[in-house]
Amino acid sequence: MASLTEFDFIDRFLKQQAAQGQPLLAHPASLGIGDDAALIPPLAAGEQLAVTSDMLVEGRHYWPHVDPAALGHKVLAVNLSDLAAMGAQPLAFTLSAGLSRIDDAWLTAFLQGLFALARQHQCALVGGDTVGIPSGAPAVFSVTAWGSVPVGQALRRSGLQGGDDVWVSGHLGDPAYAVSERRCDLKLDRPEPRLQLGVALRGVAHAAIDVSDGLHADLGHMLRASCTASGQSLCAEMDSSTLPLGPVLQKAVADQRLTAKEALLFAGNGGDDYELCFGAAAHHRETIEKLAHDLGCELTRIGKITEATQAATCAQVVWRDRKGEVDTAWSARLERRSYDHFKGS
Amino acid sequence: MASLTEFDFIDRFLKQQAAQGQPLLAHPASLGIGDDAALIPPLAAGEQLAVTSDMLVEGRHYWPHVDPAALGHKVLAVNLSDLAAMGAQPLAFTLSAGLSRIDDAWLTAFLQGLFALARQHQCALVGGDTVGIPSGAPAVFSVTAWGSVPVGQALRRSGLQGGDDVWVSGHLGDPAYAVSERRCDLKLDRPEPRLQLGVALRGVAHAAIDVSDGLHADLGHMLRASCTASGQSLCAEMDSSTLPLGPVLQKAVADQRLTAKEALLFAGNGGDDYELCFGAAAHHRETIEKLAHDLGCELTRIGKITEATQAATCAQVVWRDRKGEVDTAWSARLERRSYDHFKGS
Repeated sequence: MASLTEFDFIDRFLKQQAAQGQPLLAHPASLGIGDDAALIPPLAAGEQLAVTSDMLVEGRHYWPHVDPAALGHKVLAVNLSDLAAMGAQPLAFTLSAGLSRIDDAWLTAFLQGLFALARQHQCALVGGDTVGIPSGAPAVFSVTAWGSVPVGQALRRSGLQGGDDVWVSGHLGDPAYAVSERRCDLKLDRPEPRLQLGVALRGVAHAAIDVSDGLHADLGHMLRASCTASGQSLCAEMDSSTLPLGPVLQKAVADQRLTAKEALLFAGNGGDDYELCFGAAAHHRETIEKLAHDLGCELTRIGKITEATQAATCAQVVWRDRKGEVDTAWSARLERRSYDHFKGS
Repeated sequence: MASLTEFDFIDRFLKQQAAQGQPLLAHPASLGIGDDAALIPPLAAGEQLAVTSDMLVEGRHYWPHVDPAALGHKVLAVNLSDLAAMGAQPLAFTLSAGLSRIDDAWLTAFLQGLFALARQHQCALVGGDTVGIPSGAPAVFSVTAWGSVPVGQALRRSGLQGGDDVWVSGHLGDPAYAVSERRCDLKLDRPEPRLQLGVALRGVAHAAIDVSDGLHADLGHMLRASCTASGQSLCAEMDSSTLPLGPVLQKAVADQRLTAKEALLFAGNGGDDYELCFGAAAHHRETIEKLAHDLGCELTRIGKITEATQAATCAQVVWRDRKGEVDTAWSARLERRSYDHFKGS
């Protein structure tokens, strides 16, 4: 384990690697790591910035002994997932880290994971901060990422309309199941932000969100935002039998380690899925199915937005089972599981 | 002390206050806190973004019992100071916080300090994250701030030229002296970012930096960046007798609690000053003196950039005393004091 000064760290590890494979930083009007601030070349005409921030804390968002390359991937991926949910194309990010020590091998692996994802999505590291924290304090990573999106085409949470289909990408629940068993899981450790899908959904989806708090909770966020924006009383009628279970959950059910209902609970509100949930008019079904095919990304229709007849039911997410019956006890369990960072895990 | 959930926190404290007095968020193409990402309206033609990030950790960058309003001010101010050093006009920022508990009164005061500064400089809070950390772990704040600057007019560190005067704004050393005595200090707790000055220095200064690591160290950063960029061997000849000492340091010298040399050490490399140090051609002296008058901001000429005759002396900062003599021992002490977050304080 070597002891590096902050400036060594910036020079040796970050500056050179950050610029590799990033056309943004080759632009004459751009400036990367090393000045008081970075400079981003002007956006194309008609484009605007989308900006997001996420903080990850050791022991809360990741196991202390997680593969550092996976962690480097994840701290950026969770932010890119937010950009995907806005239909934005990534541009650049900053990374600040609070660390009690610097281990060369650990850091090299962390940055390898970080930069591999950054290059894949042409999102350039342009700055940040490194801070020493007391020994024993959990490490903290804070990433802020921004992307560009044509003005008026961002996928806001607030655009749901009565009659919209509710769709979700990929499959759900494996990360939450892994957390419950304190296991590693490919999707938990290395989520793949749905950036291509987000861009493709511009002009197709009315609203979108990335599933990070859990499908039930995140759908609730979209509904509340849409009710507030439109003044309508919207709610969601969901079909739990259509939820795309992750392969690990499917196997656990097949092996009778979980009941079907337990598995659905992980899928319905587990969290950490980083899939996109979106609402789109029914006349877009064929377009969306073609998108799924073209992008090689499963897209499943899991429910419908309805206009509530009573204001009291505004923003409610109602789950029906295979027989079309509402399972009140199950819905209540979903509500209770809604993830909140301050409640603890 | 109340226990708030993350969503209560966002709704009650942030969303409403963040939009107050911020024209950016009244723009139809903008979107503030509450979606997957915020949206920033397109910049004016010919403008580009400047971006900076700073992380502040309890016990390292501020005392645990600091006035929360001062802390709210400071977490934003240190970032705005970086924008000032680029000649950028603030636009927006994100704030992520890792906290072990939420105390309503503390948080209200923190946000009062934060938003007062944000409104003063029309810099809108557009997003971030709140994360619970274990009890006993130091609180962490991470801010990323954006500003705009006309393409080609940003004040980079790398533009110093032989013959440039070296200037510094305001006065130096009081914050570092306060830290050494574990005292509060107005300038330590509530630094005022030199934003007006930064904008006014566009087209006047060749290079600028904000004095956060300490004047000697920060001047070294500018010199190294300028040597690398120009291929020249530049160094700085400084006159320690011209250093503008803070009023607390001046009084300490008058009261014989510090020797003049000890006071100069705090001013020469104390850190946390958040003043601007910049290089400008000698023919701009009158312009700069007029600027100082117009902005009501002291600007002091403290040295000169020279072209080194030997490459070995590249990026050296040489200090001469009142008699013009080089004090090698004193210069060596300045070098040793160079601030590094990983060395500890």
